[in-house]
Amino acid sequence: MRNDSAYVHGYSEREAERLYDQASSVKNLIHADIAYPPGSVVLEAGCGVGAQTLTLALNSPDAKFLSVDHSKESLSLAREAIKRHKIENVEFVESDVFTLPIQEEGVDHVFVCHLLEHLPDPINGLLALRKYMKPNGSITVFEGDHGSCYFHPETKESVKVWKCLIEVQRRLGANSLVGRELFPMLKDSEFRNVRVMPKMVYIDKAAPELQESFVSKTIIPMVEGVKIQSLDLGLIDKDTWQQGMEDLSRTGLNNNGVFCYTFFKGTALR
Amino acid sequence: MRNDSAYVHGYSEREAERLYDQASSVKNLIHADIAYPPGSVVLEAGCGVGAQTLTLALNSPDAKFLSVDHSKESLSLAREAIKRHKIENVEFVESDVFTLPIQEEGVDHVFVCHLLEHLPDPINGLLALRKYMKPNGSITVFEGDHGSCYFHPETKESVKVWKCLIEVQRRLGANSLVGRELFPMLKDSEFRNVRVMPKMVYIDKAAPELQESFVSKTIIPMVEGVKIQSLDLGLIDKDTWQQGMEDLSRTGLNNNGVFCYTFFKGTALR
Repeated sequence: MRNDSAYVHGYSEREAERLYDQASSVKNLIHADIAYPPGSVVLEAGCGVGAQTLTLALNSPDAKFLSVDHSKESLSLAREAIKRHKIENVEFVESDVFTLPIQEEGVDHVFVCHLLEHLPDPINGLLALRKYMKPNGSITVFEGDHGSCYFHPETKESVKVWKCLIEVQRRLGANSLVGRELFPMLKDSEFRNVRVMPKMVYIDKAAPELQESFVSKTIIPMVEGVKIQSLDLGLIDKDTWQQGMEDLSRTGLNNNGVFCYTFFKGTALR
Repeated sequence: MRNDSAYVHGYSEREAERLYDQASSVKNLIHADIAYPPGSVVLEAGCGVGAQTLTLALNSPDAKFLSVDHSKESLSLAREAIKRHKIENVEFVESDVFTLPIQEEGVDHVFVCHLLEHLPDPINGLLALRKYMKPNGSITVFEGDHGSCYFHPETKESVKVWKCLIEVQRRLGANSLVGRELFPMLKDSEFRNVRVMPKMVYIDKAAPELQESFVSKTIIPMVEGVKIQSLDLGLIDKDTWQQGMEDLSRTGLNNNGVFCYTFFKGTALR
């Protein structure tokens, strides 16, 4: 499903750390209202390094998870994480979501997190996932939206750096503005009872732990990760980049900094 | 406090209707957790046409409201609205907030809605309001942030039209991006226990009544209201404007339309 070399966030060790940090800082937004019934089979499509798998499996210890990714490298990190926590209700599968070794109507629920943004044709992907679901099975989709991001103080340079992130990801085939589209996408994929809730992360000095875990450890490294491509593509010059990153860092560090980002959580029934 | 001719939204009858529609569609976001104790005196600074006054007075029938605005025209509409609902716990005062006929530490609470965006120096305004408050009195501030707005489908033209709104208001002296700044502003105005909560309005086809009341009746007319200035200032050409407004209207009307806007609610103690 993903093309390894083109995966927008890359596969470095540092990037895996970033994904675990992100998962931890927004864990409640995603998982607070998810608990799968005992005995149910849940397909986690695009599990990556297992950043969500751990929480899914711990929160629903009597459900069985089929966690799928097409990247051998990511799966091996995911397996390690699960083993470290002595979790036994997860089976990993290396596969494209279009050719899963699962029969039609073979799973009760589907969980998808940060996957649709990477699909060239997300509706096609959702239709494929829908086929694996039993009638009345539920799907939960969680995606970000980089266009939902704004901050204070805001400078010309920090806005430009942020736009580089969106543009580099776009050129690598990712739609980082996918969050706002969840409702029409789920509708167009023939799901019923579609509901979408925004999950906004608002961070000011009253939440210093989120300034640290979300802004400094998740957002800043993600933007830093597209520096070379942004410069190579001529989207920005070196001085502007440096100024922009300094300005962006200030939004999560001092007394005046404010940072806003919104994820979207969609649920629907087959 | 405001200069009548320059007030960004104008004082037309249609605009007053728009303000009542807006108030009605976001009423719960603002008022759900506000109830003032019997006998308390509440200063509503910048009450305008009374769009919030009505709800404040109805929700806290045994509190007394001093609702202040510097515009005679707005106050006369506010008085009519209050009279129509036979409300008797509101006293209107025509005044600038810096020269209110109230003694220092004369009120228990302060309520401010869509006021700071219009102040050239909002911290100065907050410091002035703080003086009227008793020790441990609370302030509630509710403001929008036009930079928090995004939608689907999004076109170059609709984004441009939206940016015209921000720019025209800026040139008229208003900061429509004030919402994200509430936390630092309240801190810098010497308030204690500052807490800011985002109040996001997310609208898709599952909420057709909000598509109607918020997008079609509140947002679209607000943007339409800066058409002449935008063209006069050369911020946009006529064709782009028309295309942008058509595109923007689609975000609130069809099956695929999604509209996002975030208000911010700050509370603090003197």
